[in-house]
Amino acid sequence: MGIETIGTWKCFGGTQGIYRHASEATGTDMRVSVFMPPESASPPPVLYWLSGLTCTEENFTVKAGAQRYAAEHGLAIVAPDTSPRGEGVANVDDYDFGQGAGFYVDATQAPWAEHFRMYSYVSEELPALIAKSFAVDGSRQGICGHSMGGHGALTVAMRNPQRFRALSAVSPIVAPSRTPWGEKALAGYLGEDREAWLAHDACALVETRGWGGDILVDQGTDDEFLADKLRPELFEEACGKAGVPLTLRMQEGYDHSYYFVATVIGDHIAWHAERLKRD
Amino acid sequence: MGIETIGTWKCFGGTQGIYRHASEATGTDMRVSVFMPPESASPPPVLYWLSGLTCTEENFTVKAGAQRYAAEHGLAIVAPDTSPRGEGVANVDDYDFGQGAGFYVDATQAPWAEHFRMYSYVSEELPALIAKSFAVDGSRQGICGHSMGGHGALTVAMRNPQRFRALSAVSPIVAPSRTPWGEKALAGYLGEDREAWLAHDACALVETRGWGGDILVDQGTDDEFLADKLRPELFEEACGKAGVPLTLRMQEGYDHSYYFVATVIGDHIAWHAERLKRD
Repeated sequence: MGIETIGTWKCFGGTQGIYRHASEATGTDMRVSVFMPPESASPPPVLYWLSGLTCTEENFTVKAGAQRYAAEHGLAIVAPDTSPRGEGVANVDDYDFGQGAGFYVDATQAPWAEHFRMYSYVSEELPALIAKSFAVDGSRQGICGHSMGGHGALTVAMRNPQRFRALSAVSPIVAPSRTPWGEKALAGYLGEDREAWLAHDACALVETRGWGGDILVDQGTDDEFLADKLRPELFEEACGKAGVPLTLRMQEGYDHSYYFVATVIGDHIAWHAERLKRD
Repeated sequence: MGIETIGTWKCFGGTQGIYRHASEATGTDMRVSVFMPPESASPPPVLYWLSGLTCTEENFTVKAGAQRYAAEHGLAIVAPDTSPRGEGVANVDDYDFGQGAGFYVDATQAPWAEHFRMYSYVSEELPALIAKSFAVDGSRQGICGHSMGGHGALTVAMRNPQRFRALSAVSPIVAPSRTPWGEKALAGYLGEDREAWLAHDACALVETRGWGGDILVDQGTDDEFLADKLRPELFEEACGKAGVPLTLRMQEGYDHSYYFVATVIGDHIAWHAERLKRD
């Protein structure tokens, strides 16, 4: 389970790297972006970033401007690819299913079940690999993501509270069992039994499992996917029922792009740093 | 000379836009990125950003993270493409000549002379277009750039001190008449008469024309082009002779990439804001 360096660059006093490794979970090579902040007396906490539909490990790395804040707060950032890829990996031509659209589930349906195991990859294999390969504090981990990656962050965290102690999301899919992108992905990867979908639905999970901390969600009001595909009000309602403190910020005039992610990422990194550095 | 909007996005409270217009200088459509900071009582000063080899208007826009600082300091940023493009525009397969490599000169040699007029475009047409199309203070303009764009910023500013009152560069080509990228470009666009090249050589210009202010240059020490293609020590020597105050910062461990640009762009924007806001 070794990790191979594709490239490293000094950035804001730290090191931005792109790495590749053979994944047991997906049975493919996976690429991952890791930013290590400037060296300090103790190993840094880690923030996992999960990206949205069509993204690779690169989009967040070059577009979000996160390194500045991670350096400032002394956080490592780990941003994996959004699915297995390559020849021999099942695919379709859709932007919202198949390669680039793993949805952070372990597929049970053919032909996806063979490689599309992003849930196991992100919740188990990747944290173990990072803790082994980088000088980070694996006992202090937070998770955040955008769109499909916001869905991933919320669901992976709520199912693994022992592993992640801080949680936030930007423009997340919160109710995939009831909204278009999610219904397509969950039916395709998990089959038609809608009960099985609820293990990957943030609204269902917060009501059944809750969350031991508070959650930050940012959402642009001019997001073209807001009304039918994202529906943050459903998560607000579910958190209310579950008694989980949610800070939902509806940000006037912002859309679904990385220009919005860049605008709010500083607040998310500060949010995670504050929670991950508590004793 | 109207400007057409390709897209706009809210970003850090301001507006990031990509625009297209028919250029008289180049005889082609040109694309340009404009960031307007959040509205304030008076129109903002303008910082022109010139990009390096292979770039379009997009690289700086998505990779530098400049919008945050521009919003903070109340500066507009204008980042044009690096050359004319399209069918009917001369080209070669080289990354360092032809489309994507205009070198901010007005070509005199066939087949380049017809469209490759980036000097006129950047020093005359574009500032006029921006002043007409956006609510900016066209009397307060600074210019900055990276690599080939650093060369552009230095040479365009020194030849047009009435138009640009603040000047800086990141990893600039400073002596194109004596270094590989420059020799190839100047010979190709301007012909073999080396005297003509000196009008586009920052080291020559600072000695013949000087500069009425101070200049900031950042350069990474691990830049793969430092020793033979960039040679900032030549500019330091020329500024010394000319009595022009140069702040040359050799930044330990940084390379030629946008990870370095992102690391220092905040300092450059602060540098320009301070100088452009003086009475």
